[in-house]
Amino acid sequence: MHSAAEDSRASLPMTGAPLYQRLAEHYRHVIRTGTLAPGERMPSVRALMRQHHVSLSTALQTFRHLEDAGWLEARPRSGYFVRLAPTSRLPGASEPDMRVAPAAARYVGLHERISSVIERAHAAPDALNLGGATAAASLYPGAALQALAVKLLRHHPTLLTDTGGEGHCPAFRQALAHRAMSCGVVVAPQDIIVTNGAVEAMSLALRAVAQSGDTIAIESPAFFGLLQLLESLGLRALEIPTSPTTGISLEALDTALSAYGNVKAVVVVPHLQNPLGSVMPDARKAGLVTLCRRHGIAIVEDEPYRELLEHAEHVQPVKAWDRDGSVIYCVSLNKILAPGMRLGWMDAGRWSARVRMLKYAQTRHGDVLTQRVAAEFIGSGAYDRHLHRLRARLRVQRDATADAIARHFPAGTRLGVPPAGLLLWVELADGHSSEHLFHAALREGIRIAPGTIFSNSGRFDAFLRLSCAQPFDRDLDDALRRLGRLARHG
Amino acid sequence: MHSAAEDSRASLPMTGAPLYQRLAEHYRHVIRTGTLAPGERMPSVRALMRQHHVSLSTALQTFRHLEDAGWLEARPRSGYFVRLAPTSRLPGASEPDMRVAPAAARYVGLHERISSVIERAHAAPDALNLGGATAAASLYPGAALQALAVKLLRHHPTLLTDTGGEGHCPAFRQALAHRAMSCGVVVAPQDIIVTNGAVEAMSLALRAVAQSGDTIAIESPAFFGLLQLLESLGLRALEIPTSPTTGISLEALDTALSAYGNVKAVVVVPHLQNPLGSVMPDARKAGLVTLCRRHGIAIVEDEPYRELLEHAEHVQPVKAWDRDGSVIYCVSLNKILAPGMRLGWMDAGRWSARVRMLKYAQTRHGDVLTQRVAAEFIGSGAYDRHLHRLRARLRVQRDATADAIARHFPAGTRLGVPPAGLLLWVELADGHSSEHLFHAALREGIRIAPGTIFSNSGRFDAFLRLSCAQPFDRDLDDALRRLGRLARHG
Repeated sequence: MHSAAEDSRASLPMTGAPLYQRLAEHYRHVIRTGTLAPGERMPSVRALMRQHHVSLSTALQTFRHLEDAGWLEARPRSGYFVRLAPTSRLPGASEPDMRVAPAAARYVGLHERISSVIERAHAAPDALNLGGATAAASLYPGAALQALAVKLLRHHPTLLTDTGGEGHCPAFRQALAHRAMSCGVVVAPQDIIVTNGAVEAMSLALRAVAQSGDTIAIESPAFFGLLQLLESLGLRALEIPTSPTTGISLEALDTALSAYGNVKAVVVVPHLQNPLGSVMPDARKAGLVTLCRRHGIAIVEDEPYRELLEHAEHVQPVKAWDRDGSVIYCVSLNKILAPGMRLGWMDAGRWSARVRMLKYAQTRHGDVLTQRVAAEFIGSGAYDRHLHRLRARLRVQRDATADAIARHFPAGTRLGVPPAGLLLWVELADGHSSEHLFHAALREGIRIAPGTIFSNSGRFDAFLRLSCAQPFDRDLDDALRRLGRLARHG
Repeated sequence: MHSAAEDSRASLPMTGAPLYQRLAEHYRHVIRTGTLAPGERMPSVRALMRQHHVSLSTALQTFRHLEDAGWLEARPRSGYFVRLAPTSRLPGASEPDMRVAPAAARYVGLHERISSVIERAHAAPDALNLGGATAAASLYPGAALQALAVKLLRHHPTLLTDTGGEGHCPAFRQALAHRAMSCGVVVAPQDIIVTNGAVEAMSLALRAVAQSGDTIAIESPAFFGLLQLLESLGLRALEIPTSPTTGISLEALDTALSAYGNVKAVVVVPHLQNPLGSVMPDARKAGLVTLCRRHGIAIVEDEPYRELLEHAEHVQPVKAWDRDGSVIYCVSLNKILAPGMRLGWMDAGRWSARVRMLKYAQTRHGDVLTQRVAAEFIGSGAYDRHLHRLRARLRVQRDATADAIARHFPAGTRLGVPPAGLLLWVELADGHSSEHLFHAALREGIRIAPGTIFSNSGRFDAFLRLSCAQPFDRDLDDALRRLGRLARHG
């Protein structure tokens, strides 16, 4: 049963490797075993030198190595902190070759496949859903939001019948601007464009920077919704290798931008990327901005998950490095505040006027009621208390789900547990097909998301995305056991 | 003061004209003076023959003439009914030459002008708004909707936190399908696509049938939002002459479709067109469907206002004549139910799969709360009672506003009062410029919509759209008096 559980602990000694690599491996072990938890401060450079009898240069090299690999993050004037979760009992999913030159951009032709997966899944509504990315309603502050909505409806009798200043809700934009400021994004409330979730923001961003026939660089694998969006807009996707830990490869992106013309933007989900769960280190975010400025292309930053990270207030979006308005920042409150309220927003940088025009022509404004509810909640202390609880409960679910996968799946299965979030990216043993597993699992009443819907390239059939968004219980454990059995027998 | 009020009554005798034309003019007078009110049944063919001592053929010719000119409408098995409002004391706005071949399609380049008008108007937030098309919140059932929302929130604690079946609300689609059936549109609930108002429905419809560079035939003048939408999608507008009473010219449309290739669709607002207020007679709706089928183009029907008409349940959308799914039917509840709830829906005919895909990629689903509130309200008797009250109050406002225009505006001003709705289309005397009037009025604290934002052609500078969507009072009368003075002095 514990067939795949020992791998990650086996490689400790590493004799022969340079000193800083051996030291780094020591700290990876310390982090994996939970001695140093995510969000905890690493020992200082000075402590490292003293404890391990190494030089300043070796200590610094160790820190940089761990940071580059996504295990640590540097916080200005505070030192290094642990990023990764400690609970994976399996080796992480394979790292792609980050230096490989990407294949030429292609029109996305996935809609049929994605729709068929979604339709088949919908045709089995009673199936246990491990394929979705929406957390259980019970994880969100339903009662508090409901009470706010009732109060607002009571106090403002024309809330549903009045368009109230063309649907703008200044208090909501004020609350969002405040929140953004705390993570390094300075945006004036009047520059915030409220959207129907981040999906609409992304759609507007892409329509603003590109036209049908143009190319957009994206992470590979990427959220299938983005692939559908590109397809619906007649845009080509240029898939860039992306690490399950540190995100998009800047080297490969650089090569691709030099090799192929007509790339108008790169889309990134820097924090808890869907489906990988990767988190870009700050140095890479800065590097991405520099790289894209040099190539003269826009960055579209999709931000549905950042606030699920521990200490999210210290985690800066790519937008924080933007100096000339070339980062379009798209945020969703869907996974953070309430899945039932379609709330998102964007700072469209230097495309603001065009995005405003497109938004007005496309959908006008949204409901004011949900904006006001969100404004009151976000502006209160209840929001941070909710996030604290949400993260803790998701952490428990994630660890239990990852643990069950380690127990139930065959040896050779790989799974890098992301530092937070709702999703796990599992690499099947022996190149088993997730598409086959999807059909077999659905017959057993279990819904999963096969890796094939996350890329146009066909490279991810050996992967699947599993949700850890539902409270872990016996049914879930049983479903994962049956799934593991199916995965074992291909 | 009554300078322009007598014109319409002066032309009664008409000696020399054919008998049926003189008889038709007699009934126009009877209708204008209010002896026969909108919605009332005309005397029967038999009564006409007896009363005026005319032949069956003359009586029938009279009815057809009045129907063609938009004064009457035939209802199957019920006879002829009066369509036009009786209260215009001014001659109707000029009829365009309905046979003229339209100018070639052009890319719309109006966004700057429209934005500047909207921005200038927003910069004067205290101005009395006669430029909008949104009725006062007090005309809508705020209290009832609010009570429903509170009840639903109480009974469904996860309404805001749960996406509830991907945001679908079967009860809402069921209620819409029921309602549509009563006016001759048969659509299965599951074929209804719920949108963020009709604006999004229109955007999806146009994206489904056309690509950047294609041409769309539209009514001229047209709602500026449609022109902005075409511009935002890179589509060309082919402006078709449109009568202020009977709507788009089928003759001109036929000529244009034969002359210009690459026309993918025609967009019509058959009922209470914005800005004209025209209502297409049934014969023309049927003719439009036949014509477009012959040319192989789609019809996009924009339906924000139909339910404001008296006896709307007897008024069939163009969609009712659709036999092969080539009419995309787009409905808004914004002007009917509640301006503060962004609710619309569409039946995308044979483009359903593509529209679903575009909708999913563009904005996913909407809030469930407002859909459920609307479902309960529409499904109850309260909806028809609300519509009855709404129409009556709008009728009073419209008549009072039209009357004030007749009193205050200079001789030569023309205004055909539409049978219902929120808008009046005024033709200024002596070719005065509405753009000048817009600026002059804004300086006096009055906001109007100049005719120039309703067409790419520059043909409508002598027109302005005035709202009759607010309760008429002394301030409004005073504003119209000052506007009339400005119109007099150019």
